[in-house]
Amino acid sequence: MKKLLNQAQDLVKESLVGFAAAHGDLVKVHFDPTYIVRADAPIKGKTGIVSGGGSGHEPMHGGYVGKGMLDAACPGEVFTSPTPDQMEAATKAVDGGAGVLHIVKNYTGDVLNFEMAAELCQAEGIAVESVVINDDVAVQDSLYTAGRRGVGTTVLAEKICGAAAEKGLDLKTVADLCRKVNDNGRSMGMALTSCTVPLAGKPTFEIDDDQMEIGIGIHGEPGRQTVPLAGAREIIQTLAAAVIADLPFKSGDAVIAMVNGMGATPLIELYLAYNELAGICRRNKISIARRLVGNFITSLEMAGCSITLLKVDAELLKLWDEPVLTTGLRWGI
Amino acid sequence: MKKLLNQAQDLVKESLVGFAAAHGDLVKVHFDPTYIVRADAPIKGKTGIVSGGGSGHEPMHGGYVGKGMLDAACPGEVFTSPTPDQMEAATKAVDGGAGVLHIVKNYTGDVLNFEMAAELCQAEGIAVESVVINDDVAVQDSLYTAGRRGVGTTVLAEKICGAAAEKGLDLKTVADLCRKVNDNGRSMGMALTSCTVPLAGKPTFEIDDDQMEIGIGIHGEPGRQTVPLAGAREIIQTLAAAVIADLPFKSGDAVIAMVNGMGATPLIELYLAYNELAGICRRNKISIARRLVGNFITSLEMAGCSITLLKVDAELLKLWDEPVLTTGLRWGI
Repeated sequence: MKKLLNQAQDLVKESLVGFAAAHGDLVKVHFDPTYIVRADAPIKGKTGIVSGGGSGHEPMHGGYVGKGMLDAACPGEVFTSPTPDQMEAATKAVDGGAGVLHIVKNYTGDVLNFEMAAELCQAEGIAVESVVINDDVAVQDSLYTAGRRGVGTTVLAEKICGAAAEKGLDLKTVADLCRKVNDNGRSMGMALTSCTVPLAGKPTFEIDDDQMEIGIGIHGEPGRQTVPLAGAREIIQTLAAAVIADLPFKSGDAVIAMVNGMGATPLIELYLAYNELAGICRRNKISIARRLVGNFITSLEMAGCSITLLKVDAELLKLWDEPVLTTGLRWGI
Repeated sequence: MKKLLNQAQDLVKESLVGFAAAHGDLVKVHFDPTYIVRADAPIKGKTGIVSGGGSGHEPMHGGYVGKGMLDAACPGEVFTSPTPDQMEAATKAVDGGAGVLHIVKNYTGDVLNFEMAAELCQAEGIAVESVVINDDVAVQDSLYTAGRRGVGTTVLAEKICGAAAEKGLDLKTVADLCRKVNDNGRSMGMALTSCTVPLAGKPTFEIDDDQMEIGIGIHGEPGRQTVPLAGAREIIQTLAAAVIADLPFKSGDAVIAMVNGMGATPLIELYLAYNELAGICRRNKISIARRLVGNFITSLEMAGCSITLLKVDAELLKLWDEPVLTTGLRWGI
């Protein structure tokens, strides 16, 4: 196992100490229970937003804590749900009296633990709404999930809801916006190689040199199928066709498009992939209003990519364009 | 070879088409000869700044074209110098009458080609200054270089000189600032794995599962030594010790520190590496005034990292903090 770490069991903690040291102007990291929180939290009267999930998907979620996005993120161990006490402590830390939205990716552990945390917080008088993101069109159920998995749309939901909360919208409105984003966002991913969870010490799945996995999950969960290696044109066509057919995205729709690297895919390849996606959207008369190309929701050092399309109207686009100041997304400030 | 591309020979071009499609608000891409240029170039009376080099190091250099950084970048084929006609065309495209600075990484091909381009431009009446960056402390000469290689300090030089040019400083002053950054910046890198140049189709170098390369170049050139795999603490100690001893950086110095991923290193590991570097600086009473942690000058899908320290004074720090709006670095706007 070739990794830049000391002891595998210390990776998450030591990385968080580094993250806190690097970005103390934006965030603070609290340990035991562990969460990353905006340096200026709690903000009186502002709807709080908390997300979280296993580590190994950076910059998600800690990289999205900051002005105009998340108030706090709870990192679990690598590919492991954070615990309810982390979520409870983070929720309390960011509640400014207006309640807190939990944005939860649909993985069984995350959903159960966020539910428990929400109940604990509600019992103490904090209003909590939860929205589960389930945008992955690849498979109906998977290794860690009942129903569809939550993937790339989570990034877009966190940005848009973060903007809404920053503008002073109330908990119910922000939660409804999150549901709207989830309803209108679809994703699918693929992998050229596996990743290795440090504590496991060996690749999560086997894949031959001449094969790739279509519909992979962000933890290396099996996808739709293992197929012979193909060119980027065919790969992006396969992903885009599944995504477009699912909503469905139609001629005349405007979208935010994300081409996301799984961790080890060079940026030069991601822009080539974006070129393919842009061509497909053009041919389908889907207009790309905004786009992200880079590593936003990763799977350690997996090679591959995912694409996400979010159908947007003027309301979502306006919130997208609002300023954001986090380590992972930053504009307008 | 597992890569997200169509035909290997089309990677650079198709990626640039995608880059242009994604970021038309910031940049334009000109083909034949190929260069990336600020959408608002040329800017009358502003010192222009052009850099360039082989592709495969993204976001360098194209990702640093924009307000407050480069006016243009010339991408060569993967790990191959751009040609003088690219550099000449880019220089002409950005000259606003105040002359143009060439920031050149010290690789023999880049240096020769930029020299030829500078002569061609000067013959046509454009003032050109060239600064060669040679900050890599790993080796004196290497496969592609006489003298030290130019690596991470290039990013910092482009940011600082870009700010100076944006503020209206003249060519000579901006070039002198670039020399000052080069004089005060030092870097060293390491690799856990090799990368594969698409047209070569096989890894650039062989490395065993239990070995790593210390002092690697950004094209997979051999480093100081191939050694047994070690933990991050020992790795960063080795890199930092060589960097610190070289300038030397001394107790009381303030620095900009960069922990740079080579392409396939997860962000979670880079923050762990930053934690190690921060500890070393603290113990050496070197104060980290600003920092970058992420992928800034990469080697395709190589796993590994480099560290760069730049000794700064108030002048450099003020320019560092100036706004920048590029796809690779962005703040204050």
